[in-house]
Amino acid sequence: MANPLTPDVLVDPVELTRTLVDIESVSRHEQAIADDVEEVLRLASHLSVDRLGNTVMARTNLGRDQRVVLAGHLDTVPINDNFPSTVVDDLIYGCGTSDMKSGVALALHLAATLPDPRYDLTFLFYEAEEIDSKYNGLRLVAESRPEWLLADFAVLLEPTYGVVEAGCQGTLRALVRTTGRRAHTARAWRGVNAIHAAGDVLRRLSDYRARTVTIDGCTYREGLNAVKIHGGVAGNVVPDECVIEVNLRFAPDRTEKQALEHVHEVFEGYEVELTDSAPGAMPGLTAAPAREFLTAVGAEPAAKLGWTDVARFAALGIPALNYGPGDPLLAHAPDEHVEIGKIRDGATTLHRWLAS
Amino acid sequence: MANPLTPDVLVDPVELTRTLVDIESVSRHEQAIADDVEEVLRLASHLSVDRLGNTVMARTNLGRDQRVVLAGHLDTVPINDNFPSTVVDDLIYGCGTSDMKSGVALALHLAATLPDPRYDLTFLFYEAEEIDSKYNGLRLVAESRPEWLLADFAVLLEPTYGVVEAGCQGTLRALVRTTGRRAHTARAWRGVNAIHAAGDVLRRLSDYRARTVTIDGCTYREGLNAVKIHGGVAGNVVPDECVIEVNLRFAPDRTEKQALEHVHEVFEGYEVELTDSAPGAMPGLTAAPAREFLTAVGAEPAAKLGWTDVARFAALGIPALNYGPGDPLLAHAPDEHVEIGKIRDGATTLHRWLAS
Repeated sequence: MANPLTPDVLVDPVELTRTLVDIESVSRHEQAIADDVEEVLRLASHLSVDRLGNTVMARTNLGRDQRVVLAGHLDTVPINDNFPSTVVDDLIYGCGTSDMKSGVALALHLAATLPDPRYDLTFLFYEAEEIDSKYNGLRLVAESRPEWLLADFAVLLEPTYGVVEAGCQGTLRALVRTTGRRAHTARAWRGVNAIHAAGDVLRRLSDYRARTVTIDGCTYREGLNAVKIHGGVAGNVVPDECVIEVNLRFAPDRTEKQALEHVHEVFEGYEVELTDSAPGAMPGLTAAPAREFLTAVGAEPAAKLGWTDVARFAALGIPALNYGPGDPLLAHAPDEHVEIGKIRDGATTLHRWLAS
Repeated sequence: MANPLTPDVLVDPVELTRTLVDIESVSRHEQAIADDVEEVLRLASHLSVDRLGNTVMARTNLGRDQRVVLAGHLDTVPINDNFPSTVVDDLIYGCGTSDMKSGVALALHLAATLPDPRYDLTFLFYEAEEIDSKYNGLRLVAESRPEWLLADFAVLLEPTYGVVEAGCQGTLRALVRTTGRRAHTARAWRGVNAIHAAGDVLRRLSDYRARTVTIDGCTYREGLNAVKIHGGVAGNVVPDECVIEVNLRFAPDRTEKQALEHVHEVFEGYEVELTDSAPGAMPGLTAAPAREFLTAVGAEPAAKLGWTDVARFAALGIPALNYGPGDPLLAHAPDEHVEIGKIRDGATTLHRWLAS
């Protein structure tokens, strides 16, 4: 099949968004879209192109002082009666319109049409962001091609509705366990009820006052929540174990280790088992390209509260932020759509910043 | 196959226990044992015999002022490397030795060897006590042959280790539900955590002071316990529901309705859904045959704390108690056994009481 990413399409980020949406690319099925993207990037003489799995990298090598990464994932969540795209007035509907083919379209448009940018640019179109992180293309690149990520600043074109969301909060999950002694409920006084004992753990959660932390003008709001609880043996047995899974979202001024120590403090006296953790990312807005980017956008940055792939750059010491035309509230929704005006605004802003 | 319940076996309650244990009769597979029991009862000219499913009823009709029921279930829990029986010193090992073929042996021995008892006697050998109560033979008799249960007093030969356990506590299960509002844990303040809200329910359970109630010299000890808890949507979602299953064991001075009202009081402000309930049974030790029985046993009765089929008699207005040679702590255990001395003591006691 002919590559739909024709020169006419590449110069128009709105048309490019529709065309990318109409190449089906649910996670783990990104080969077709990666092939098309790789092919058109190889046609651009100012780019050197490489590939790892279904992740495509292209970069300029102009000898600029600074290098900036523009990155976006090619995959989408499963289609939900929203493929291919449709246009209603100034909205493009379809799976991936907001998350994040409109962002990918901006990066691909710039890669194809900006041969002489102000900074050296690295473009990353990566696979498998929407599923288990073991498949995440950016993670695989960080592991086996870390040199692709070397840069002074990175922009992830995830949906932010045109707002700059800087850094991200870390996340940690742990199991808090209460124990007791089994007995028949007809002779309950012979036992110790582990579910009753969980009341104290839940009280500590209810009483918990989460921190609010401002860094580089971005305000992070932490949170500690029980996300699951289970306990019980049978309808006539005093239970001997209850397990509460808690999720701490922590501002990027805490390391993962400090976050875990904090959870241990909160649940002092109880067994705490770490199950999952990912570091936050400092907003890092003091780097020169970041300041110039903020000037081009002309808006104050906000804190990113969820965890995103910007943390993978932060882990390499590279400041990174999220900025994209999609609407994060529509991500993964059956009626997912993107505003055509936001795509055009994003393209104009990025051009203003990157044109030399 | 020849009926193993020969006259030589029927006169010896110890030999009879072993023979009954060696007729495999896991719940829902009681036909063979019921056939053998029915056959030997029909040979006794002082008994009239009837049958419902695999439940066998035999009774005298001597015109006595009082009628007493002796009842026991024929089924056992599944075999667990403990079939057939073995004898080690003065212990008989095997599935059902304690729960409750030694008790059934006492009743069957009396049925066969006591043609002229002090009271009219009704013997009930019933099916399916160890499984879902919809199969329970005594329940089926109460529903479709209630006249079989008419009596002034009933003894269930469930294992009590030779102690008299009178009446029984009721049991009630209910779901207590807390609700909230879902949100992403990165923006937890937009939600309301239903698991945190469950802390108050658990605190009420921890603080609960259970009643102790003495009736006819029997002391009942109530209890209210969480037996299960579950809640949670996903590792990154503030949960909107948490369900706590509670089990109230209540003294027989409360009706089921009163018990439910009590649970509603304890959890006032929360949704409470009744899932299961069974009434208690008053000890009813003031009936003449009961007093004479206690004299024959020569011991003070204790309260039965668990729920047993005596409540089915109580529901018909018939005082009932548990008294059997088995050891309740060994019921359902792989090393289940019964003491030969307890079987002989039980036979002697029941003879002393029932012989005219």
